[in-house]
Parts: sequence; C-alpha cells; structure tokens
Amino acid sequence: MAEVVEQEWGVDLISSWNKHGWFTMANRVGAKMAKLIGAKAHEVMVADSTSVNLFKVVSAALQLRPHRRIIVSERANFPTDLYMLEGLIRQLGSRHELRLMDHDDDISASITDAVAVVVLTHVSYRTGRMLDMAHCTQLAHQAGALVVWDLAHSAGAVPVELNEAGADFAVGCGYKYLNGGPGAPAFLFVAEALQDSCEQPLSGWFGHAQPFAFEHTYTPASGIQRFQCGTPPILSLVALEVGVDLMLEACQQELRQKSVGLCDTFVALVQQECSSWAFQQVSPNSASKRGSQVCLAHPEGYAIIQALIAQGVVGDFRAPDILRFGFAPLYISYVDVWRAVQQLKAVMRERLWDREEYRQQSAVT
Amino acid sequence: MAEVVEQEWGVDLISSWNKHGWFTMANRVGAKMAKLIGAKAHEVMVADSTSVNLFKVVSAALQLRPHRRIIVSERANFPTDLYMLEGLIRQLGSRHELRLMDHDDDISASITDAVAVVVLTHVSYRTGRMLDMAHCTQLAHQAGALVVWDLAHSAGAVPVELNEAGADFAVGCGYKYLNGGPGAPAFLFVAEALQDSCEQPLSGWFGHAQPFAFEHTYTPASGIQRFQCGTPPILSLVALEVGVDLMLEACQQELRQKSVGLCDTFVALVQQECSSWAFQQVSPNSASKRGSQVCLAHPEGYAIIQALIAQGVVGDFRAPDILRFGFAPLYISYVDVWRAVQQLKAVMRERLWDREEYRQQSAVT
Repeated sequence: MAEVVEQEWGVDLISSWNKHGWFTMANRVGAKMAKLIGAKAHEVMVADSTSVNLFKVVSAALQLRPHRRIIVSERANFPTDLYMLEGLIRQLGSRHELRLMDHDDDISASITDAVAVVVLTHVSYRTGRMLDMAHCTQLAHQAGALVVWDLAHSAGAVPVELNEAGADFAVGCGYKYLNGGPGAPAFLFVAEALQDSCEQPLSGWFGHAQPFAFEHTYTPASGIQRFQCGTPPILSLVALEVGVDLMLEACQQELRQKSVGLCDTFVALVQQECSSWAFQQVSPNSASKRGSQVCLAHPEGYAIIQALIAQGVVGDFRAPDILRFGFAPLYISYVDVWRAVQQLKAVMRERLWDREEYRQQSAVT
Repeated sequence: MAEVVEQEWGVDLISSWNKHGWFTMANRVGAKMAKLIGAKAHEVMVADSTSVNLFKVVSAALQLRPHRRIIVSERANFPTDLYMLEGLIRQLGSRHELRLMDHDDDISASITDAVAVVVLTHVSYRTGRMLDMAHCTQLAHQAGALVVWDLAHSAGAVPVELNEAGADFAVGCGYKYLNGGPGAPAFLFVAEALQDSCEQPLSGWFGHAQPFAFEHTYTPASGIQRFQCGTPPILSLVALEVGVDLMLEACQQELRQKSVGLCDTFVALVQQECSSWAFQQVSPNSASKRGSQVCLAHPEGYAIIQALIAQGVVGDFRAPDILRFGFAPLYISYVDVWRAVQQLKAVMRERLWDREEYRQQSAVT
C-alpha cells in the first residue's frame, strides 16, 4: 500500500493508469482469483460490491431466460442477496416472482421449468452449511434454469470448482477469507460461453468496448469486461491483490485439510469443554457439508461474542442467537482453536455460570 | 493510509467498524463534502462509483415522475452518464426516451412537461463550460421535471450551491479536484425533501433500515442512507477523507479567485506565446461560464499532450482533438501555469514548427 500511495500515486500520478497497470488491475486480480475458484482467468473480474455484482449477473441471467418469471433462492440466504433481488424485480415491473425455499431439501422440487435463475449461496453465512455445487447446478440446468452462486464465504475458505460444476454466474466479496481489507472490492464470474450473449444494465464506461473513444452510445466490450461499470477504487484493489497473492502461495488442498482439521477440533473441543451450557451446533457435523466456519446458537449469543472479542477471540454474532466462528486456514492455528474454546469456557463460567436457566436449557437440547 | 492499514485494520481488525467509525465513514465524508457543494450534511453520502450513483438517482427520479417518459441530457455529456441512462432505459422496458440536446441553448426548448428528469453536467469535461445551475434547475422545475447534476468536474473546482439552486439530485467523483486518489469512491446528493419519498433499485444491505437485524425483506433506511448499497471500500474512503479534509482547510471563495486567475492567465499566455499554432480555445472566455479548466483543440492534440506529459506537464487528451488543462487551485501555482505554456511553446517549436499545415490552419481560425 505504501509503495502504491507514495510512488505510483504520489510520484507517477495519473500516468500510473498505464505505467503501473491500474487500467487492467481489476482483470489481473480477477485472473488470480480465478485460480482459487476453479475458473478461467478471463471469466473472473474484480468490480464494485457483491450486492451490485449480484444485480448485474441476475439481470444478465434473466435476459437469457426472457420467458421465465421465477427466481428461486433461499429464505436463509444472506439478506443483501434477497434485498437486491427484490429491488431488481421491482425495477423490472414486478413481473417476476421471488420464490424462497425454506430448506435445502426443497431445491429439487423448487426448480421447475418456469424458473429463470436460481440464486444460491455456496456456504451459508448463518450455519456454515455447504451446498453441493455440481449437483445443484445440474438440477437447475436439467430444468433449463441458470445458476448464480454467491461465494462470499467460500472463496479462499474452501475449494471451489466453478467450471467443473458447470456454473453460469458467481459473485463474492474480497474482504473475508481473501483478506482483501475492509470493504475490499468484490468479484464476479461469468462462464465464458455466456459472456457475449448477455448484457447487464449498469453499462458504465469501463464496460464499454472503447472507453476512451468517448462515443455517445454504449457498445459493450466483449467478454467479462462488459460486466465492469465505473472506475475501480485502485487503493482498495491494491490491498486485495496482496491478499490474493498470499492465498495463492498456499496449496489449496492443504488449506482445505487444515480448515477441516480446525473446524473438527473446534467442534470436538466445544463438546468436551462446554457441554454444561446450552450451545446448539448449527453447522453440519460432516466436514464435507460445511465451509470453514462453525456456528453455535445460544440465547445469550450477543453477550458471549462481545465478551470473547474483549479477550481477543474475534467471532461474529448473527441475529437472533448465532455465534459464528470462522477458521481462516491461512493463519489460524490449532493452538488458536484451543485457546478460543478455553476463552469460551471461561466466559461462560465467569459471566453466566450462575444463571440457572442456561443449565436447564442445556439439559433439554 | 499507513495509520489505518497498520493500526485500524492491522491491529484492531474487524472491531474498527465500530471503534474507528468505519460504519459511518461514508456518511461522515459525505457530510464534509456537503460543505463544498452547498448541501446539508445529511444530504450527501459517499458510495460506489459515479456511474452506479447516477443509475440510483435517475431511477429514483423516474419513480417520482411515473407518468413522464422523457429523459433529457446533452449529447456532449460525459459518455458514462449517457451509457448508464441507456442501460437504465433498456432495463425499464424501453418505455422511456433519451432526448439529447446538441447545444446548451436548447435547454429551455427541450424541457417540456413530458420530461421526467434532466441529467446535466455542471462543468463539461470536454469544454470546461459551466452551466448556470440555478437557472437550469428553475427551468426544469417550471416544467415539473427533476434535475440530476453531475459534479465530477465541479466539486472542489468551483463553488457549487446545490441547496441555493434548489437541486434535486447530484452525483460526482472523488478522484478529480477532491484529490481522493485513483478511482476514489464517488458521492451522491439527494435533497432532503425527496429522500423519503423515493427508493432506488440497488437496495443492498447498507441501505437497509436495520442491516444487522438480517431481516429477509428489504426496508429502506430513512434519509440518504437508503441510497447506499453494499459494503463501502474503507481503504479508498480513507484517502478520500484526507483529500476532502485538506480541501476544507482552504477558503472556497479564495480558491475560486485563484482558479479564475490561473485559467485567465493560461488563456492570456497561450494567446501571447502560442498564437503561431492552430489552437482553438474550446472553453468559454468568460470565467463565470467556465470551470477550473481550459480546453484547447488541435489536430495533433494527442501527440502534443504526450510530449507535455513527458516534460511533467500533465494534461488530458480527449478524443478527437481536445487538450484539457485542469487547474487544481489548491496546489497549482501561477508559476506552474507560466511553465506549462512555455513547455507547450517548446513542444510546438521543437516538434511541429516546421509543419506548414498548422500555420495555415492557424491563419484561418
């Protein structure tokens, strides 16, 4: 960051757009990310936020299925995905229906031949549940629908094979397991075969075939570039590139093994050390159905997470009662896991041990 | 930047969203920008790119004029504005018409009572021409239309009085005169009276009334916040805030005086020193009708700008033949202007003086 601020921006000024490759940075970083999600280099690009990218790719998907009126997603999807779909449907004149599944098991039944696009999150932010991407994509394709995968909790956390699964579109953020920094730019994936057959409505100049010809009318660039919109925030992109570069130094298979080991250890230790309290495990037990996170539910979840953060164990609280522990395999160690569980135990003992209701709940669940 | 990267992100990690005000940063920086563009603190917010923000505010404006079908803009507007309007119209089912004016003089005639919204750029990127914001806004309002102002070449360059002009919406970028860094996040303005009566389609979680309640359906936040979409890129926001803070240390009236002085000096010096060559002044002569830039046209514009940049005089070339010289009054000095013109003269003498056609063209124009 210092190098870019002091030399590229500070000395080389605007010439850095060419000299230091700022113009193609969104593509360059995208191409690197592609390696982490099983895609081709020219199928991934960094752009905007996950929300904005979802709007783009779902718009494009609907354009490819003009006679279908149903968008399928999950009620438990990350809310911004649902909000963006709401906004898009309203803007398109409320002619589409958002059909929300209540259980993963409903996927097969929900995808009929009236469905245009299925918007699924690969690893659930709330439960850590990981869907079988290849299977779900196949179900959608069999019904003639397209699939958009949200990889926010997958990229850099678990192996993702978009091409192998035959995925159509994907979006995700750079600020979780990719360590791209706070609010890091997001990314999007569009399968090669679809890129030139659809457009997206946020048709800004960075997606134009010749942005610096300053033409009066829009001609989409070919390939993934047409999914770009405005000028990308270079400083945030710089930090993201460093995060992705570091991730690429590790072997993805070994990372996955470590991630599974960390999560399994956490699950076992919570059972061993914290069985006196009413923690319900929300995440699947089987590693093959779980991302790189373990979620527990507890009625005092908010207070517990706050107490843990004060001790340096940084988890997330997700309303109404979920404690989320994410295990970034690149830098979280088994010792960290041990210490986290010991802190959890200490927090429960010191702050909550005398509250009889938790012991009773624990006995019930 | 170093402080934020090393301490806030590096040490305080995710807790910085609260501890260091990252959550409200887009509003805080927006409130500071408001002082530069004559708006109330809660009417301005930093978000996304100029292109994405234009999509939001024009969508909102159309919602406020549901029975009107015409969008008026200028053919010479910055292309991304036109591209975004194209994309929006297509998305809305091509029921709207984009009517492009060829001359500023057409504004009065173009705004009929069928016009929903007028999208104007305050200071033209191509010519430096500055529109009378209050007058144009009044014309639009008389016809019952709303106005969106693009302030990309205005904010930090010339005094802007959005409230005084009665403006409805505005957008602009942070990376020009605000010195926010490459691809810095953009901003948007929505007049207080309109904020709660319209929504925008990019309804992401940062625009939700309670983003961390993780509700399944979207409820827009009140006020300007509903125009936010996804998570903002904090690192780029940090640089932008520094740029805006520095700008606020200067007296805006004195900045304007200096800007006019710099531009007038450049115009006079080009006439005095470079009259032998075929430069056409594209910018208005009168400072009251000009932003903080002077544009010249020359058939060899591209080569000339390249030669100047090589000498450290950084201007822009804009196709087909425009040389743009921007005078950022905060740090450009009168001596810089003198040197720039001397360099221009030297470039013309050394490289082009023997090309007879330029002398002839010069004689004609």
